[in-house]
Amino acid sequence: MKKVLLSFMLMVTCCLFASVAFANDKLFLSGDITLEEANKVIDAAKAKAQEQGTLMNIAVVDAGGNLKAFARMDGAFLGSIDISVKKAKTARYFNMSTTDLGAAAQPGQPLFGIEATNDGLAIFGGGELILDTDGVIIGAVGVSGSSVENDVAVSKAGASVLSKRASKKKN
Amino acid sequence: MKKVLLSFMLMVTCCLFASVAFANDKLFLSGDITLEEANKVIDAAKAKAQEQGTLMNIAVVDAGGNLKAFARMDGAFLGSIDISVKKAKTARYFNMSTTDLGAAAQPGQPLFGIEATNDGLAIFGGGELILDTDGVIIGAVGVSGSSVENDVAVSKAGASVLSKRASKKKN
Amino acid sequence: MKKVLLSFMLMVTCCLFASVAFANDKLFLSGDITLEEANKVIDAAKAKAQEQGTLMNIAVVDAGGNLKAFARMDGAFLGSIDISVKKAKTARYFNMSTTDLGAAAQPGQPLFGIEATNDGLAIFGGGELILDTDGVIIGAVGVSGSSVENDVAVSKAGASVLSKRASKKKN
Amino acid sequence: MKKVLLSFMLMVTCCLFASVAFANDKLFLSGDITLEEANKVIDAAKAKAQEQGTLMNIAVVDAGGNLKAFARMDGAFLGSIDISVKKAKTARYFNMSTTDLGAAAQPGQPLFGIEATNDGLAIFGGGELILDTDGVIIGAVGVSGSSVENDVAVSKAGASVLSKRASKKKN
Repeated sequence: MKKVLLSFMLMVTCCLFASVAFANDKLFLSGDITLEEANKVIDAAKAKAQEQGTLMNIAVVDAGGNLKAFARMDGAFLGSIDISVKKAKTARYFNMSTTDLGAAAQPGQPLFGIEATNDGLAIFGGGELILDTDGVIIGAVGVSGSSVENDVAVSKAGASVLSKRASKKKN
Repeated sequence: MKKVLLSFMLMVTCCLFASVAFANDKLFLSGDITLEEANKVIDAAKAKAQEQGTLMNIAVVDAGGNLKAFARMDGAFLGSIDISVKKAKTARYFNMSTTDLGAAAQPGQPLFGIEATNDGLAIFGGGELILDTDGVIIGAVGVSGSSVENDVAVSKAGASVLSKRASKKKN
Repeated sequence: MKKVLLSFMLMVTCCLFASVAFANDKLFLSGDITLEEANKVIDAAKAKAQEQGTLMNIAVVDAGGNLKAFARMDGAFLGSIDISVKKAKTARYFNMSTTDLGAAAQPGQPLFGIEATNDGLAIFGGGELILDTDGVIIGAVGVSGSSVENDVAVSKAGASVLSKRASKKKN
Repeated sequence: MKKVLLSFMLMVTCCLFASVAFANDKLFLSGDITLEEANKVIDAAKAKAQEQGTLMNIAVVDAGGNLKAFARMDGAFLGSIDISVKKAKTARYFNMSTTDLGAAAQPGQPLFGIEATNDGLAIFGGGELILDTDGVIIGAVGVSGSSVENDVAVSKAGASVLSKRASKKKN
């Protein structure tokens, strides 16, 4: 009896997991950032970092704020793993760059202390929204590993690659 | 006066971050997994998943157990982001596959309850060590998104690509 | 039957753990800080603290940012256990002293708020990188228990002992 | 005025931290484990591990359950840093070996699930109480890195060194 039950449970598990019960295109919102697009963002960011001579952690989250892709360049800060992911999430959580959020989180400003929420936010530049060709937010990229100025430049290079390519399409 | 001080501190900061004070090869131990190698692991894992028709989260950590690269295939489980990272870390943390660790962590087994340590471990299959050509542990890969059986197959496909290529080199 | 299975699993577990399946030198990257070296760092730091008449917590992490050795002098602050470990990790995470990181994390400075990342960073002096004779980063030391000035002096005394001894070797 | 205030605060801080305001022997309970004793525990545990041919993480906590000393042997599991500390704390938290606590935490037993409390406990062997010559609990040692059987043997070798030496004194 117990054996039968086990077999049945194993069967159910296999059905649930082994063969995906939905068509792939029903598993996530159409228009959300794809892995292919996320990798393009990372490649563009990496190219900008190499041009700068910096070593970066680069994280991409999707429209739901969940990690989609990540890369740490050889020798880049270990502490920037978490910061790059937090920058990407923070940008998407509040639909603005972490530069803009950070300005509002300074001492005396309205959002002072916001970095203590959400298990820790990143409130300095290097997190940028990723928009599609229609301007819809489809994710965000977070970059950490050098000065804030360099992080911002690399994150913008990454974020813009999808919209730039898109706008070329339109012309 | 205050302005001068701020400018000076900004300058110091820029110097600290913008120009890395060390040569790149002094920033991490030689022999650790590189981003190029980590991406090869992810590509091999992804190819195996596509052969299976499954949707996977794939995470690679370095010899220190720190995240090096990550990819979530389109439509793959959101809950598997954390699991794939934990599988990779768990394998490196105990220098064995999560399958082997899981066997010792079952009720009645010696390591029952180990998953409550290290902020949560993954104690089922899908985490495999990555060895270099000399058999030195240089990282680990964690895969999550389908049945444990499929996860294991994909993680092994990923982990073996570096040693396989290496052994081809030797011939 | 069940008994046989359990015996078998126990046997497997013992094999997995009791006899390490790898040669020791394949378990970690060559060049990483050894326990003997970490203890030398702690001894040098402790000697400096005794010279100061202070009571310190001293933590050493390896190249991967993982705790290698720790000592709390009798009567030293309990709250400095966590701080000393965080100082060591923070220094390694960003490849600079916590003094330098702290300067960039003040209100109005570019990295204001960084302490909310990585499950909490220590952004005041007392964390210093440990370099080998070739200048490669092999770990970091964190010291906490007195004024920041004293903490810094003790952490520097600890960090420098390996490179100092090394340079003596060269002569 | 602001300058004077700053000077005053700096002075206060220096008094608080630089010169310890209490005699050292008033800073902690007399009889609590000393760093010298904790290091003897670690040395005895390490000697036993070397005799076994195993690679261990060894943690010692004091009577208050706070980390006193720690050592990770070269090549020992990274995941055992946390486990060794948790074993030491768990033993002291419940004034029994983790072997005994673990027996009561098995499925169907009274304390099933206890490992989810206290930010994670370790409920398998390798954590042992440290007693002084009068049988007073002065701390605990946690060992992790091999089979539970080996971990237990090493932790007992460590824990007994203080009472053993003590009993020799008595004779």
